Amino acid sequence: MRGAVLYAPGDIRVEDRDDPKIVEPTDAIIRMSATCVCGSDLWEYRGISEIDGPTPMGHEYCGIVEEIGEDVTTLRPGQFVIGSFIASDNTCPHCVAGYQSACMRRQPVGREGAQAEALRVALADGTLVATPEVPDDDMLPSLLAASDVLGTGWYAAVAAGVRPGCTVAVVGDGAVGLLGVLASSQLGAERIIAMSRHEPRQRLAREFGATDIVTERGDEGVQRIKDLTGGVGADAVLECVGTGEAMSQALHSARAGGGVGVVGVPHGVSIEGRELFRSMVRVQGGPAPVRRFLPDLIDRIWQRRIDPGKVFDLDLPLGEAAEGYAAMDERRAIKTLLRP
Amino acid sequence: MRGAVLYAPGDIRVEDRDDPKIVEPTDAIIRMSATCVCGSDLWEYRGISEIDGPTPMGHEYCGIVEEIGEDVTTLRPGQFVIGSFIASDNTCPHCVAGYQSACMRRQPVGREGAQAEALRVALADGTLVATPEVPDDDMLPSLLAASDVLGTGWYAAVAAGVRPGCTVAVVGDGAVGLLGVLASSQLGAERIIAMSRHEPRQRLAREFGATDIVTERGDEGVQRIKDLTGGVGADAVLECVGTGEAMSQALHSARAGGGVGVVGVPHGVSIEGRELFRSMVRVQGGPAPVRRFLPDLIDRIWQRRIDPGKVFDLDLPLGEAAEGYAAMDERRAIKTLLRP
Repeated sequence: MRGAVLYAPGDIRVEDRDDPKIVEPTDAIIRMSATCVCGSDLWEYRGISEIDGPTPMGHEYCGIVEEIGEDVTTLRPGQFVIGSFIASDNTCPHCVAGYQSACMRRQPVGREGAQAEALRVALADGTLVATPEVPDDDMLPSLLAASDVLGTGWYAAVAAGVRPGCTVAVVGDGAVGLLGVLASSQLGAERIIAMSRHEPRQRLAREFGATDIVTERGDEGVQRIKDLTGGVGADAVLECVGTGEAMSQALHSARAGGGVGVVGVPHGVSIEGRELFRSMVRVQGGPAPVRRFLPDLIDRIWQRRIDPGKVFDLDLPLGEAAEGYAAMDERRAIKTLLRP
Repeated sequence: MRGAVLYAPGDIRVEDRDDPKIVEPTDAIIRMSATCVCGSDLWEYRGISEIDGPTPMGHEYCGIVEEIGEDVTTLRPGQFVIGSFIASDNTCPHCVAGYQSACMRRQPVGREGAQAEALRVALADGTLVATPEVPDDDMLPSLLAASDVLGTGWYAAVAAGVRPGCTVAVVGDGAVGLLGVLASSQLGAERIIAMSRHEPRQRLAREFGATDIVTERGDEGVQRIKDLTGGVGADAVLECVGTGEAMSQALHSARAGGGVGVVGVPHGVSIEGRELFRSMVRVQGGPAPVRRFLPDLIDRIWQRRIDPGKVFDLDLPLGEAAEGYAAMDERRAIKTLLRP
């Protein structure tokens, strides 16, 4: 099969790779319907995170079950399925508590690279969620978004404690931040302040439910949030970047007792204990337990109540993955969908 | 009047000071019934936090209203009152949300030193809570504890998300940690693991509701918590120390999705963003909004359902404050009560 492999910073190649095989009896093989490039893939693409030799890329996926291991009981070939970037058994104490990304048997799905024609998914019964039927093609982008960016933005909103009637600030206007806006809107937020200085992203944020746009950053951005909230701060802040500046901005934008949901994977971020203490905010983050939200998210998409697939503003054949990465790296695209 | 003043590390003197006077029309003067030494006073006593010249000490207090400013409407002279170490108007948005320690008009009560015969309390209507009657003498220690250590331990438990049936770990066996045990028990925790290597404190922890004692610290302490919880971690962890080691231990002792309530004032603590992220725990801390809990705490004490005053294992006349500090510094006493 064909799959994307990162050889060195900036050097993505789509090449022939071995077809995935059932390794464990709990595995499933899926034939990829659509996959995509994640903002987090750019850390390696840009050379900020190191790779150890040629690395298959991608961890977002949806497609048709092609083969199942002998212990898989809830899936059958032909079903259309979506899973998270972390395989989980969905039965351990962490899974039962809704933290499937901390599953005691968790495995990173992306190790074998989802930017490919097929993918082995471990712990298939626990990991994969089937749609009611094979979806229409136009629904693919939204269902694919549920695999990571929608689920991650949703978790950011839940971790930040977004509730009906509350005021939310979203730091970061990447796909996750934009879907954090959508999640906040779906969860009933009354006011959603998106922090963005890019017009196309501002437009999409408004489409997803943002009521205010703040273009300032850092201390000025914090001051704008305070101004917009009567000096109090936001009830909930979504940190969808992963830098120290974004984290500090998030902490200072929330009211005392407010929540900050952190889904930007921290890179070189250190939080001063006293700053966190004084802020009195409630902070929760981590790799999103997307599996917790998948059934609900799929249902919302299936009923066409939400259209998170709009974050894909570049749609390419898998063979053009290199251009997909470059466009995101240069911020020409928010997110690139790849079709095998 | 007589009051305790810190002149230099280790040098506490009780000397004549000016009687407090009404400064703002919202002030009240209270005649001190009992006051005490706080673990946080030791930071200055030990020279870890610097002082700028002779400094009146103390911020925990209860006593009889002696005089009120002309704008004070809810209190009258002769009432017995308790307040928090932070004066708050109890009407601003932060107060209404239950975060009185972030009150937009907040003032530190301790600036004029509560280890004295009398004290001016700002924003008296918002800050002070009266008991139904003047209490019996034997109730003084418990009512005094409500002014800070009980309220702070209570906040630690609430911030950590302690709920009926849950498993709690308490890091720190000072007065706040011990009262965090009591709070967890009152809030319905089924299992309470106190981390302590001091026998008298272990005994008090058990009296307050601890079901397990862990004497190990650091990684070994974390491992013990994991062993006691089937490898999962505690649902809620109370960090009642304020050092980097305690914070790290707390983060690693909580389960994914569990809560860490931080009330140990951080001293030189820096949290690695990725460590916090990976832990998936919910962290909330800060100076406790004691005022939120005061009516309920006073009620529990008044009904003799709890006896938090047991943390005072040294009871001295105000004039012997120096010995009270020394005993706590040398860990000969958990907490020193001072009687003017």
